[in-house]
Amino acid sequence: MSLGPLIKVARGEAPADLILARARIVNTFTGATERGNVAIYGGRIAGIGDYKEARETIDLGGRFLAPGLIDGHTHLESSLLHPTQYARAVLPRGTTSVVTDLHEIANVSGLSGMRYIRDWARRLPLDLFFMAPSCVPATGLETSGAEVTARDIRTVLRWKNVPGLGEMMDFPGIINGDEGVLEKVSLARGRVVDGHAPGLTGKELNAYVAAGIGSDHESIAWREGEEKLRRGLRLMIREGSSEKNLETLLPLVTDKTYKRCLFVVDDRTSADLVNQGDMDAIVRRAIRLGLDPIRAIQLATINPAEYFRLDGLGAVAPGYAANLIVLDDLHDFRPDLVYYRGRLVAQGGRALFKVPPIKGGGLTRTVHVSPFPIEALRIPAERKDDPVIEVVPGQIVTRKREPAARVSGGEVVADTGTDILKLVVVERHRATGNIGLGLVAGFGLKDGALASSVAHDSHNIVAVGANDRDLYAAVNGVEKMQGGLVAIRAGKVLAALPLPIAGLLSDAPLEEVNNRLESLETAAARLGCTLPAPFAVLSFLALPVIPELRLTDKGLVDVSAAPRLIAQTRLTENRPSPA
Amino acid sequence: MSLGPLIKVARGEAPADLILARARIVNTFTGATERGNVAIYGGRIAGIGDYKEARETIDLGGRFLAPGLIDGHTHLESSLLHPTQYARAVLPRGTTSVVTDLHEIANVSGLSGMRYIRDWARRLPLDLFFMAPSCVPATGLETSGAEVTARDIRTVLRWKNVPGLGEMMDFPGIINGDEGVLEKVSLARGRVVDGHAPGLTGKELNAYVAAGIGSDHESIAWREGEEKLRRGLRLMIREGSSEKNLETLLPLVTDKTYKRCLFVVDDRTSADLVNQGDMDAIVRRAIRLGLDPIRAIQLATINPAEYFRLDGLGAVAPGYAANLIVLDDLHDFRPDLVYYRGRLVAQGGRALFKVPPIKGGGLTRTVHVSPFPIEALRIPAERKDDPVIEVVPGQIVTRKREPAARVSGGEVVADTGTDILKLVVVERHRATGNIGLGLVAGFGLKDGALASSVAHDSHNIVAVGANDRDLYAAVNGVEKMQGGLVAIRAGKVLAALPLPIAGLLSDAPLEEVNNRLESLETAAARLGCTLPAPFAVLSFLALPVIPELRLTDKGLVDVSAAPRLIAQTRLTENRPSPA
Repeated sequence: MSLGPLIKVARGEAPADLILARARIVNTFTGATERGNVAIYGGRIAGIGDYKEARETIDLGGRFLAPGLIDGHTHLESSLLHPTQYARAVLPRGTTSVVTDLHEIANVSGLSGMRYIRDWARRLPLDLFFMAPSCVPATGLETSGAEVTARDIRTVLRWKNVPGLGEMMDFPGIINGDEGVLEKVSLARGRVVDGHAPGLTGKELNAYVAAGIGSDHESIAWREGEEKLRRGLRLMIREGSSEKNLETLLPLVTDKTYKRCLFVVDDRTSADLVNQGDMDAIVRRAIRLGLDPIRAIQLATINPAEYFRLDGLGAVAPGYAANLIVLDDLHDFRPDLVYYRGRLVAQGGRALFKVPPIKGGGLTRTVHVSPFPIEALRIPAERKDDPVIEVVPGQIVTRKREPAARVSGGEVVADTGTDILKLVVVERHRATGNIGLGLVAGFGLKDGALASSVAHDSHNIVAVGANDRDLYAAVNGVEKMQGGLVAIRAGKVLAALPLPIAGLLSDAPLEEVNNRLESLETAAARLGCTLPAPFAVLSFLALPVIPELRLTDKGLVDVSAAPRLIAQTRLTENRPSPA
Repeated sequence: MSLGPLIKVARGEAPADLILARARIVNTFTGATERGNVAIYGGRIAGIGDYKEARETIDLGGRFLAPGLIDGHTHLESSLLHPTQYARAVLPRGTTSVVTDLHEIANVSGLSGMRYIRDWARRLPLDLFFMAPSCVPATGLETSGAEVTARDIRTVLRWKNVPGLGEMMDFPGIINGDEGVLEKVSLARGRVVDGHAPGLTGKELNAYVAAGIGSDHESIAWREGEEKLRRGLRLMIREGSSEKNLETLLPLVTDKTYKRCLFVVDDRTSADLVNQGDMDAIVRRAIRLGLDPIRAIQLATINPAEYFRLDGLGAVAPGYAANLIVLDDLHDFRPDLVYYRGRLVAQGGRALFKVPPIKGGGLTRTVHVSPFPIEALRIPAERKDDPVIEVVPGQIVTRKREPAARVSGGEVVADTGTDILKLVVVERHRATGNIGLGLVAGFGLKDGALASSVAHDSHNIVAVGANDRDLYAAVNGVEKMQGGLVAIRAGKVLAALPLPIAGLLSDAPLEEVNNRLESLETAAARLGCTLPAPFAVLSFLALPVIPELRLTDKGLVDVSAAPRLIAQTRLTENRPSPA
C-alpha cells in the first residue's frame, strides 16, 4: 500500500475509514494507558489524537483498546481444526496473529501439507506466520510420512510470513555437532531460530545456545527458566492443553526480565479454545496470579512481535496494523470487539466473518496401513521385563516404570486390575507393516480401546486398550475413516471424530468437532478412563523427543541422555510405500 | 565460520582459544551479574561456566566483564578522524561497535565516499555498521557535492553490515507525502529506518511515525521524548559534543520504558573522544545522574543491538561476538581491557593495535571554489533589515534575532562592539561561485576570522570574521589546504588543521589532530572568541534542517515550519562543475 494516503489521514487532512473514539489505549511501548481517538485507514492505524472525520466512528466510551494478541508458538494442528475453523475459534478470543510451526502436517505431508495451510491462511482475517519446521522427522526412531530437507527449508524461508526456523527439537544433534542439523540452523542465519530444549543445562545449554538458538518453550521449572534467560534464550512461557507452566515460571517475569519473556500456547485443543480461551486465557490467568495487566498484555503482543520481528504488530501506534481488541476491564481480561486490519471480525465471543467451505485438496487419503492379523498385536511373554510407560497427569513427559507385565497364555496381556494397558503404534504412511507394542499405566480403562491418527511427531496410529479385539477394531476404525479418533467397546464404535485431512484435521465446523470430541471423552470415561483429555495424552505417547519412555512404530524408546530403541519392533512385513 | 568447533568448546570437549577466568559478568539479558569463566573460541563466546582448558587464560580475579559498547548513532566524520584513527580513539573507551550514518562524506563524495570508509573499516578491529544516508542532499536550500539517489540507496542496502536507512531528516517531505522521500523509506521496508524529527508533535508526529520511522535522537525536552516513546519511536538519548540531552531525558528511562531507550553520541569531536570519552562517558554520566549501572550498560549494548538487529552483539552469551570490556568498578565506569572478537585491542586507555598508513584514495582534491574578489564579500546596505543568526550555547539550534546591522560606507559591516559578525558560506564543490552572506551573534571575535570546510550538511566553506580581509584570507586558506580548519589574523594563518580527505577528514594521527585543534581553539580565544568549541558551532551554522535561522551558499534560510530562503545569494557567476 502506498504511504501517501495513510500519512494524509494521520495529518488529519483526509477522513479515516474508521475512528475508534474515546478509547483508553493500552500502550505496549510505555506500559501505560492513554485516552484518545484512534484513526484507522487502509487497515492500518494512522494516528492517535483528536481525530474526528471518518466514514465510520465507533464511540468506545472509555473502554480499553489493546493490540490484538499474538501467539508466538503453536502447532495449530493440535486443535484438530481446519485453519478456517481455527480462525473462528481464536479470533473471538482476541488472537489476531499466530506464529505456527507446521511440524505436524509436515511430518505427514511435507511441503505440500504446509502449502495447504498457507494457502488457506491467505483467505482468513488472521495473520499466520510460519516457522520452517527444522526437525521433520525429528528422529530416526519412528517412521514419518515425509521429510523436510535442508533444501525444503531453504524454500520455505523464502516464503512470505516466515520469520525463521521452527523449534530445533534435535538438541542432541546440535550438541553433538551433527553436520546436517547445523546446516539447517545455518540456513536461517540472520533469522529467528526457535529452540526446544527440555531440561538442558550447563555446558550443554551453552553449546545449544552457541549454535544461534533464540528461544525455548520447554522450561518446566523456575531454575531451568532462569538459566535459559541468563544464557540469552527468550523465555516462552507455555500454557497449553497438555503443558501448563505459567504458574511455575511467572515469578521469572520481573522489571528486569519481562521484555525477554512471552506467552505461548504450543498446543491447545479445540475444546479448550472454545471453553477456556486462547492467549486471552493465559493473560487472564497471569493477571489473576498477580502480573500487572499491561505487562501481561505486553507478553502477548509487543514482546512476540519484537522477538519474531513482526514489524507493525503488537502495538496501537501509527503505521501499525489495526489488529485491535476492545474490552471493559483490564483485570478480567475478556476481549469483546476484535478488529483485524480495521475490520470487525468478532464480537462478544462470536466470529462475525464467513469462511469458505473446506476442501481437502491433495491431503485426504493419507492413511496407508499394511493389512495385519489380530495376532500381530500379541506381545510375546519374553518381553515381560520391558519397562512400562507411565502417564504423568498434566504433563507431556512420561515416567519409565519398572516392569509389571501380566503374562497369560504365553503372552503379555493388559491388566485392568493394575491399570497396565496395552499400547499399540501402527505405521500408517508407507504401509511398512511396522507395529510397535508396549504397556502403559495411567489411563484407567476397564474395557474397550481408544485410537488416534494424531500421534506426535510422525502421526502413526496409536491405540490404547484393555483387550486385543478392541485394539484391533480401533486401529481399523481409524484406518477406515482415513484418520481420526475413535472409542471402541466390544468391537463397536462408541464415538468417533474423522480427521480426513492428513489424518490430523477435521473438515467439520468447530462446533461439530467439539461435540464429537466431547462424545469421545464421555465414551472414554464410560470405559473407565480417568484422564480428563485421554486423546491428547494418547497423542504424546509416541513422541520420542520428550523423556522418559515412548512407543513408536519401531519399538519402545528410552528418551534419556541419548534416545534409543530398547525393544525393537519385529517387522511382520515390509512393503514399499504405496505412494 | 563452521559452528561445529565452537559447539565442541562450549561442551568443554575442546580447548578454548582464551578463557577469561573468575569474571563478574554483566548479564544484559537479566540485568544482574554472575560469576564464571568465559570460554572464547574463533572470536566468539562459547560458554560461561567452569571452563578450564585454553591456549591462554587470563585471571580477571573478580573484575567486571561487560559486552563492548555499541554506539547506535554517530557521524564518525564529526571526529575529523580517518577511520583508522577513529578506531584508535574509541576502542580504548570500550566502544567495539558503531552504527554510523555517513551522511557527511556522502554529501561531498556520494557512494564513493561511503565505499572509502567501508573499505577502511574492514581492516579495523571495530564493527562498523552503516545506515544508508536517506537525505543527501537534505534539502535544495544549499549546494552539495553529491546526491544519493533512491537507486544508490538500493545499492547500499545490499551491502553487508547495513541495518537500514539513515536518519530521515526530511520530515517535512514525509509529512507532506513527497513521493521521492516516501520511495526511499519504502526501499527499506522490513529494515530499520532511523528518524530525525526535532520538535515534531501531535498529528505531524503521527504522520512521520506512520511512514515506518523507528527512532529519533533529536528530543531535547522531557515532554518531547515522552510523546515520541509513546508513539513507538525508540528514544535515542544523545550526548555529543554539540548536543547534550542526557540530563533532560534520563528521567524518561524507567522500568517500563528502558528497553525502548538507547544512548547515542551523534557527533563527538576528536578532542572530546580523547579527553572525555565516547559511549563510556555517557554511561558514566548516566550512572552519576542516578541510573542503575547495569541498566546504563544495557542502553549502550543490548538495546542498540536489538533495535538494529545486530545479531550476536550486546551480551556476554554463547554464540555472541567476544567483544568485551573489563573494568574494576561499575559505578566509576572506566573500561580497562577491551577485546574485539577475542583479541585484546586496548588496555588502560591505549590502543594496542597497529593501523595501516592512511591513503586518501580518490577523495582528495574535492575543494573547487570559483575565484572571486574580496568585494564579493560585501553585504549591500539594503540588506540591513535581514535577521541575525544567534548562537545558542551548547545546542545546535540557533535563534533568529531581530535585525541589528551596522551600516558603514554603504554596506553592512561586522560590529565587534555588539558582537554582530559577518558570516560567509562559499560553495566549494562545483565552483558555482555561490557565496551566501549574513550576520551572526555569539562568537565574540574581536579580530580575525575562522573558516572551515566542515559545514553541515553540504560542507561548503563557512567562515565567520570581524573584517572582510581576514574572511577572504580564511576562505582562501581552506581552499589552499583542499579542506580544513583555519584561524586568521591580519591575513596570516594563526593555526590550521588540513582535512584533505573530502575536506572532512584528516590524514594525520589522532594526537596531531587534537594538538592542531587545540591550537585552533587557542587562536580563536586569542581573537576574542568566547565559545568553547567555535569550529563545531561554525560547522552547524549552514545546516538548513535545524531551526531557526541558517546561512547556506544559496542565502539566508528560515528553518521554521516550511524552511525557505529569505535572502537569496546574488550569484556572481555560475560556472558548471569542473568534475
